[in-house]
Parts: sequence; structure tokens; C-alpha cells
Amino acid sequence: MEKGPPLELVDTHLSEYSYIGGHLPTQADRAVLNAVCVPSDRSNTFPNLRRWAAHMESFTRSEMQAFPPHTESCKMDNQLSDLVNKQLNTDAAASNKSPVNDKAGNHSKGSQNEKAGGQSKGKGKSGKFVLKTAKGTRDYGPMEMAYRREVFSVIYSVFHMHGAVQIETPVFELKDVLTGKYGEDSKLIYDLEDQGGEILSLRYDLTVPFARYVAMNKIDNIKRYHVARVYRRDSPAMTRGRYREFYQCDFDIAGQFDPMIPDAECVQLVDQVLSKLGLGEFTIKINHRKILDGVFGSCGVPSDKFRPICSAVDKLDKSPWEEVRKEMVDEKGLDEEVADKIGNYVKFSGKEELLETLANDELLKSSPSAQAGFADLKLLFQYCKSLGCADHLVFDMGLARGLDYYTGVIYEAVLTAGQNIGEEGPVGSVAGGGRYDGLVGMFDPKKKTVPCVGLSFGIERLFTIYEHKMRAENNKVRATQTEVFVVTACKGMVHERLKLLGLLHQAGIKAEGSYKNNAKILNQLQYAEDNKIPLVVLIGESEVEAGVVKIRDTVTREETTIKREELAETVRQKLACL
Amino acid sequence: MEKGPPLELVDTHLSEYSYIGGHLPTQADRAVLNAVCVPSDRSNTFPNLRRWAAHMESFTRSEMQAFPPHTESCKMDNQLSDLVNKQLNTDAAASNKSPVNDKAGNHSKGSQNEKAGGQSKGKGKSGKFVLKTAKGTRDYGPMEMAYRREVFSVIYSVFHMHGAVQIETPVFELKDVLTGKYGEDSKLIYDLEDQGGEILSLRYDLTVPFARYVAMNKIDNIKRYHVARVYRRDSPAMTRGRYREFYQCDFDIAGQFDPMIPDAECVQLVDQVLSKLGLGEFTIKINHRKILDGVFGSCGVPSDKFRPICSAVDKLDKSPWEEVRKEMVDEKGLDEEVADKIGNYVKFSGKEELLETLANDELLKSSPSAQAGFADLKLLFQYCKSLGCADHLVFDMGLARGLDYYTGVIYEAVLTAGQNIGEEGPVGSVAGGGRYDGLVGMFDPKKKTVPCVGLSFGIERLFTIYEHKMRAENNKVRATQTEVFVVTACKGMVHERLKLLGLLHQAGIKAEGSYKNNAKILNQLQYAEDNKIPLVVLIGESEVEAGVVKIRDTVTREETTIKREELAETVRQKLACL
Repeated sequence: MEKGPPLELVDTHLSEYSYIGGHLPTQADRAVLNAVCVPSDRSNTFPNLRRWAAHMESFTRSEMQAFPPHTESCKMDNQLSDLVNKQLNTDAAASNKSPVNDKAGNHSKGSQNEKAGGQSKGKGKSGKFVLKTAKGTRDYGPMEMAYRREVFSVIYSVFHMHGAVQIETPVFELKDVLTGKYGEDSKLIYDLEDQGGEILSLRYDLTVPFARYVAMNKIDNIKRYHVARVYRRDSPAMTRGRYREFYQCDFDIAGQFDPMIPDAECVQLVDQVLSKLGLGEFTIKINHRKILDGVFGSCGVPSDKFRPICSAVDKLDKSPWEEVRKEMVDEKGLDEEVADKIGNYVKFSGKEELLETLANDELLKSSPSAQAGFADLKLLFQYCKSLGCADHLVFDMGLARGLDYYTGVIYEAVLTAGQNIGEEGPVGSVAGGGRYDGLVGMFDPKKKTVPCVGLSFGIERLFTIYEHKMRAENNKVRATQTEVFVVTACKGMVHERLKLLGLLHQAGIKAEGSYKNNAKILNQLQYAEDNKIPLVVLIGESEVEAGVVKIRDTVTREETTIKREELAETVRQKLACL
Repeated sequence: MEKGPPLELVDTHLSEYSYIGGHLPTQADRAVLNAVCVPSDRSNTFPNLRRWAAHMESFTRSEMQAFPPHTESCKMDNQLSDLVNKQLNTDAAASNKSPVNDKAGNHSKGSQNEKAGGQSKGKGKSGKFVLKTAKGTRDYGPMEMAYRREVFSVIYSVFHMHGAVQIETPVFELKDVLTGKYGEDSKLIYDLEDQGGEILSLRYDLTVPFARYVAMNKIDNIKRYHVARVYRRDSPAMTRGRYREFYQCDFDIAGQFDPMIPDAECVQLVDQVLSKLGLGEFTIKINHRKILDGVFGSCGVPSDKFRPICSAVDKLDKSPWEEVRKEMVDEKGLDEEVADKIGNYVKFSGKEELLETLANDELLKSSPSAQAGFADLKLLFQYCKSLGCADHLVFDMGLARGLDYYTGVIYEAVLTAGQNIGEEGPVGSVAGGGRYDGLVGMFDPKKKTVPCVGLSFGIERLFTIYEHKMRAENNKVRATQTEVFVVTACKGMVHERLKLLGLLHQAGIKAEGSYKNNAKILNQLQYAEDNKIPLVVLIGESEVEAGVVKIRDTVTREETTIKREELAETVRQKLACL
């Protein structure tokens, strides 16, 4: 791209796609950004290009270097495609010459002196203020929020179907509340500065605050949902959708109840949400911590190594057995033959029958822990059949879940086909949870506990997949819900426009008009078309005199003239027919 | 209350009211808490009493001492009322003897050494872990969330009626983004600890992040709403509804448009939200920074004192003129006669005619600033009349608004009658905003700005008033939306119950059942009544055999037997008739 691509071409492409390569940033974005000169004026030219370029500014150079390579995963104009490939080749040649500097990646541990020295962080090399969001965070724009509202509305409707109540807890907790709950992940907790007063930390998940809430309010039983953002000072991988601030969407049932009834409801709820979102085939894997403990015990794992070995098994969904075995033996000091015995079990995966087979396994027959787990899962399968949600259920001995606090049934839902996003491959787990009967007791002065079972949706992933699917189906969600755009045909009619707006709002109709005193009629009609506002209400001087208005269908461009007093009713009828 | 009140009595009272005195905590809560022995077991006895007592635990003793005095602002059983008054007298006598210790009020500035010494903060004197939320924050329980959802749903519907898009920004920003925007209130900003990396702060409001978003994305125009919690390290006054973490609900229009059209839309939107919420009479006060500046200039205030004097005027809604004058003269060094001249103007308040009168005022006639302001407000009045939202509009020369960044029209909505909450007196301001044309430019490298006008609802106050009104009207909101409770009449029918639940959910009906294997029928029916679930679907062995189910109306207790395959349809019909 010795000569940059025509701006129109890029702008048109970006009116359809978030990035040059489609749905996720790739090296193509870097290449094009280097090649184009983005108009810096505030004119209305190339809005998509400018939106994209501004978004690109929020990445550091090292983040951009880490973008995955470009492959054409979306439709692209041939000319643009050629130009992108040429530029990528030029870049590749150039990168062998000059070292790349991280333009804002100042992540060294800062001392108090540095801070006192003038708040250099968050400013660029030149000391100039860098306009960006904090590392690992981002803004959600209007379109993202529109997709989000749709996903949330499905999830909320299922929560309400199950009679769940909603709670909210503060974004920060006393640090002591979080201490000792997350094992080595505690280092990822954000602390607030000690400005005099209590020592506070941002919440790391919603489960620990929920347990604190239940214990503090001495609640015996509650079925609640909680949707909120949580904070982890992790290495962000924004192109893979891993952020430092992200939503969690939790549903939990606390209370002393008969075995497996609440657990089955959690499985049913996952099944219902994923079915309703229509994101394609999925599987709900289940396992049981008591079965895993039984296997570990029977194979000869010392009991103090149950949790570390469980963590190793948890990596099976990302790593092959050989690597997991290596971790067990080399890092966690397990005997090779013990590891091999475990390997024989964790490979099993199947339907209900497998439970019976393994319950009669020579080694596991004598493990009371494993037998208790098998009994639970058999009952769970039966309940799920009665609830009509057993079809997607798979018993998977390799499922372990990372968190220490699980004590019983564990489950994880994975999308199994057709949900690759760009170059990222299959999205994998979209929901997970299990039973944690000990957590509330950690907050109770007398260690009395309330048994809990719950689940958390990987809501950021669901958003991404849903948005991807909607775009793929050309099923565009609008950022606004405006039904009517009020258009005035000539000058000096701003008051008439406002009167109609007042009238339509009074009738509960979503209506907008231009903010210009004497807006040009074509610009107004264009606005309605661009924003997919279905109806236009049009008045000129003759309409005002005659006490009528014109209604225009934005798509068919059909116009009808009606009496002013029939406006609201006619609009309602037309909207109902769309 | 030498002898404590019977627990039943208190529990019954608290089933109706949040606090002993009604809607807000008072000294009566402290008195009763000292007198009763709250059952600490996990039995199901006195749930309301236990909920209240747990909530009381979240206050420190000094916070409880600051509760307002008790007056009977709610209906109270005579026996309870007598007991409360007796106990209050006993307490008053006792308090003359013993000093009161603050049980958790350790607010001294902590040094690094203290922290290293074992995180004493957040633990009680004994070093025991204190189970509480962070100072100035609280959990929102199921009922509060239910009221909140209703208020939000009204506000969102109005936002969507105006075609606003939604955005979200991160909860923390680079500290530099917030620096220099809030004047002396900057000391109230929460900083995050420097854990290596960027220097971050929690957002203080939603306006500055919005301006950062507009500048960073080089947006020319946007009409957006944003609802989220913000953070201020202020002295909390929780009984007055002032918290350190609280919701803001903002609507803003950014863009270069013709004068007063977006400003009028903001006024219209406030009018619509307050009308729809039905919280009683309200007034929308308006004024203009240019008028105030014109008055200050004409009266002889030096221009560098415009903003401090404006801040003083802002206090007129809480303090009498004499105090405001004192602040101007003693603290801000204004000449007495200049202050008196200002006093002559800021007392004016009236309808549109007043604009004309003051525009012809001898002194102000020669102030171009004041004249520009009057012209804007005249146009605003006219636009509001066309929009049908001028009835509540009042031009108030005493309205100043605290924030420095306003540059044009300012407004504030106040509830004017019938909205006293307990002993707190009138709630006052419930929405406010104005034009701020310079803020976005503070973030642009070339200082190019985008004019903005917007407003923020005092949503926490609106929640409180709405909840109060609903309770006063005995118009109870349910925490859940469950429509059907599935009841099994005898043992061994859990699978039948689950099948019906699966069937009802499949049909989109909100249904729950007991988590007990063999739940007692009376307990199940009682649960449905207690939770106001309108319909019960009942099956026993004979119903299963005959392929029928019974539907019972929870209120009338009428029962109908229908065929199982007609269940979903019949339930839908019955729900539609409720």
C-alpha cells in the first residue's frame, strides 16, 4: 500500500464490519492504520473510518502487535483486499529493520517517588496526556449496548421464570472479606488506596459477596440473581475478549434442601438460556467433586494434594493429557504411576449409563466418596429428565472446575459447533458452576453454613457470539428504538415540529426531530433512512393550514395524508403492521 | 421497656415497615434493638425481626446515635408504641451516665506500618472480623431491587422515547482524566492503590467520563443515557440517603445545534419522567449562567470571583440569604454593598413575564451577558410551550448549581408537596443539569470542543420516594414475578412436580415448586400465599392417574380441574383475567 487505500473504500467496509478483518482486530487493522490518513477535522465525512481509527488509538503498540494475523474471515472488496495484503507485506519487510516501541506500555512497578514526581503514568513519553481508558477496560458504545440489552433481556426472563429475586452489593468490599477465598489468584485483586479509613478492595467475583450477604443478613434461603462487573488485575488479552473489568451474571440457590432438586434447576436454567439465545448446539458437562476425590483417593493421591491435582485436571479442556500429567508429576510431585491411574479415569465421558459402569469399577466400588457422587449424579440425571433438560447433559470425568470452594456437583456448558469467532477458534465454555456448601460458613462467627449451588454465565462471550450471529444473519439491531421522525418541509416551522413531538410523546410514541431550526427536508428524510426509523411524519405550511399531516413509510416511501387528530392512532396502527 | 416487647409484635410491625418508625431509621430502632433479644438460631421464626436486626448491625454506634428522633410517622400497634416510648425514656436517662463508644468507627489516617501490622481495619476492637459492607455503602435487597426496577423502567422508557442510545464506561479512569474537573471536591475522589501500572481513580460522576468518551472517539454528536454508580469519599449520612456509592442516571445531548432546541428537550424529559412516576407536584426551576454572570458583573463583582460567588448563591436553597451574604462578605471578601445588590436580584422568581421585566432592568440592560441569557430563556420558554412542558417551568434567579463547568442554561427539578419522608422534611431537588460547552474541549488535544447539555436524576431519592409512596398506598411490589406455584399433594411425587414445572416453563410461564422431596401440602399452599403467587397448580396421585390437574386461585381459593394438556392455555387465560 505504498499509496494508501481510498478512504471511501475503508469507510464503506467499516460501515459493515467492526474491523478490517471482520469481527475482531487483526494485523490488517494495524496495516491499514499505518497507511491511511484519517481526517482529523470534525466534518461528517467517513464517520465509520473515524470511529474505527479512534478505537484503534485505544490500543498500545504492543497490544496491536499481539493482534492475530489477518485472514479474510469477512466479505471484502477486492481492491481493499489487495491493498491490505500489499501493505501487510511491506510492513513485514519493514519490521525486520526497526525495533518497535511500546507507546504507552509503562507497566513497571511504580514507587511513591515516581508518583510524587508528577503523575507520569497515563501520560505519553512526551508528558502529553494520553486520552484512553484504563488498561484492560473499554467503553461500551451504543451498538454494543443494544446487543447487550437483548442478551440480558433473554437471561432476565429466564431468571424471573424461576422466581429468582435480584440483589446488588457494593463494588468494593472490606479487603478481609475477600482474603483467603481465591488462593493464588488473590494477587489479581485490585486494592483501593488507603486514604484513611477502611482497607478496601474491588470485588473479584459475585460469589464471595453473595456468601457475605447471606451470612451477614442471616438468611436461611434465597434464590437470587446478580449481574454486575467484577475486577481482576490479570494480563488483559482484549483481542481474545479477556478484560480487567467484565460482567458476571450469576444465579444461586442458597438453603438446606433435598438433594439435587436445586442442582437440577441450575442445569435446567442453563439449558433454557442457551436454547433461547439460539447460539447453536451446546453440551452441559457434569461431574462431582466427590467422584474426583474418590478417584484421587483410590489412585493413591495424598489427601493434601487433592486440590492441586484437581486444578491440574481442570486444564484438560485446554491442554492434552501429556501436559497435564507433566504438571502432576513435575510440578506437583505426584508418582508417575498414580498420575497414569488418574489418566485412565479422567478420559471417560458419556451419558447416564457411564455412571453405572464407573460406579461398578473395581477400584471405585470401595470409595464411599465416589459412590456418594455417583448416587447424586444418577438422581440429577433423573430430575433433569423430568424437567426436560437431560438431552444436552454429558457426564465428563475430565471436568474439574478451577475454584477450590466447590464441594459437590460441578457443571460447565460449552458451545460445540458453528460458533468460531474470526480467528479465535471455538469459544468453549459459556457457563459454569456447581455446589459450594462451605463458603457461607466462612463468614459466620459460629461457622454455621448455608449450602449453596449456583452458576455464572460467561456473559461477555455470549455477547460477542450473539453480536457475531446477528451480524452474520444481517439481522441488525438498532441502537435506538425511535418509531417516528418528525420532518418539517420548510423554514420557520420549528414550533410546529415541537408541537407534533409533544403530541406523539404524550401518546407514548417514540419520536425524534431535527435539532436544527431550519433543517433541510432531504437531510431530515436521509436521517430517518440512515437510522432505520420506520415512519416519518411530515408537515409543510399547507398541512398546518389544513390541519393534516403526512405519514411516510421509510422503506416503501408510501405517503398518506391524515387528519392531525388521527395521528397517534394511525401511527400506532402502522407500527403494529410493520 | 424494662421487659422487652414481645417478639411477635415487633416482627409483625416489621413485616409492614422497614424500620420501627416507618420508612427511615430513628432512635426507636436503637431503643428496640437494645431491648429485644433477637433469636440467633436459623429457625424460621420472626424473619422480619431478624432481617431488621441484621440490617441494624451494619450501622456503627455513632451512626445509630445520629439517627433522627422518633416520632410516629407510621401506624403502630398501641402496645408497641407504649413500649417504644418507655424504652426511649429509659435510654435517655441511661445515656447521661455512660459514655458511648464507637464500635467500628476507626477512621484515623492509617500509615503503611499499620497496614503491615495485620490489617486491623475492618476488624473490631477484639481483632475479630466484623461482617459489614464498606463505610457508606450498602447492599440492595430483593424488595429494594424490585422498586428500583420499576423506577428504572419508567425512566428508560422516556429515554427511549427520545431516541437516546446507551453507553457504558469503566468504573475507574486514569486519574489524569478526573484531575482538574471538580475543584475542591477532588479530595473526595477514591484512588486505587498503585499496584504497578497506571494511576487510577474511581469515577466521581458520569459527566466527565462522557466528555472523555466524546473527545476520545471524536464524536460530533450523540444523545446518550448512562445509568451507573459513582463514588465519593464524602461523610456518609445514610439516614438522609447520602452514600459513598450511589446511582446516577444521566441523559446528555452533545453536538453543535441551533440554540435551545436540545435544552428544551432536556426540560421536556425531566417533565415526562416526573409526571410518569407520579410522585406529586413538582417545579422545574431554570436560570442561566450568563444571567448570573451579568448580575455579578453589573453589581461590581470582580470577574475572578464569579465562580466562588456563584457557589455561594447555590446555597440559597438550603440557607437563608443572611448566611449566604455572610459567606460572600466574610469568606469570599466581597464588599457589603455589592453583596446587597446581588441580594436584590437573586430573590426574584416567577414565570415568563419576569424575564421581560428583568431584561429591562436599569442595571442589566447594559449587560450583554445578561441580555444573551434572557434571550436564551425566552426562546426556551417558547419551545417548552410548543412541547407542552412549560407548566412546571419557573424562572428562578436564585438557582446557581454548584458545578463550575456550566456555561449556559441551568435547571433543577424539585418536588413541592406531599413528599416528606419520615422526619427528613421535603426531599427537594430530584433532577438537575444544564449546558456545559467547554468540558469536551478539555480532553481534545487541539481544544476543539463539542457543546453539551444534559441532566442527571437524583435517582436514589426517586427510589426512596417511590418506595415510600407504594408502601403508603399499600401497593406492594413483589420481589419475584412467579405466576404459578406447583404443589404436590402427597409423598413420592417430586418427579411429577418437576414434569409440570418443565411443561410450564416450556410454555413461557413463570413457575416454581418446593425444593423438598416430600413437601407438606399446607406448607406449599402457605408459601404461595405468603409470596403472593396468584395461581397454584395442584396434583395428587388421582390427578396423575386421570391425566388432570387442579388450578387454584390463591386469593379466592377457588379450584378448577382441567385436562393436563389444557394446562398452559388455561393458566394463561386465568393470568390475563387477574
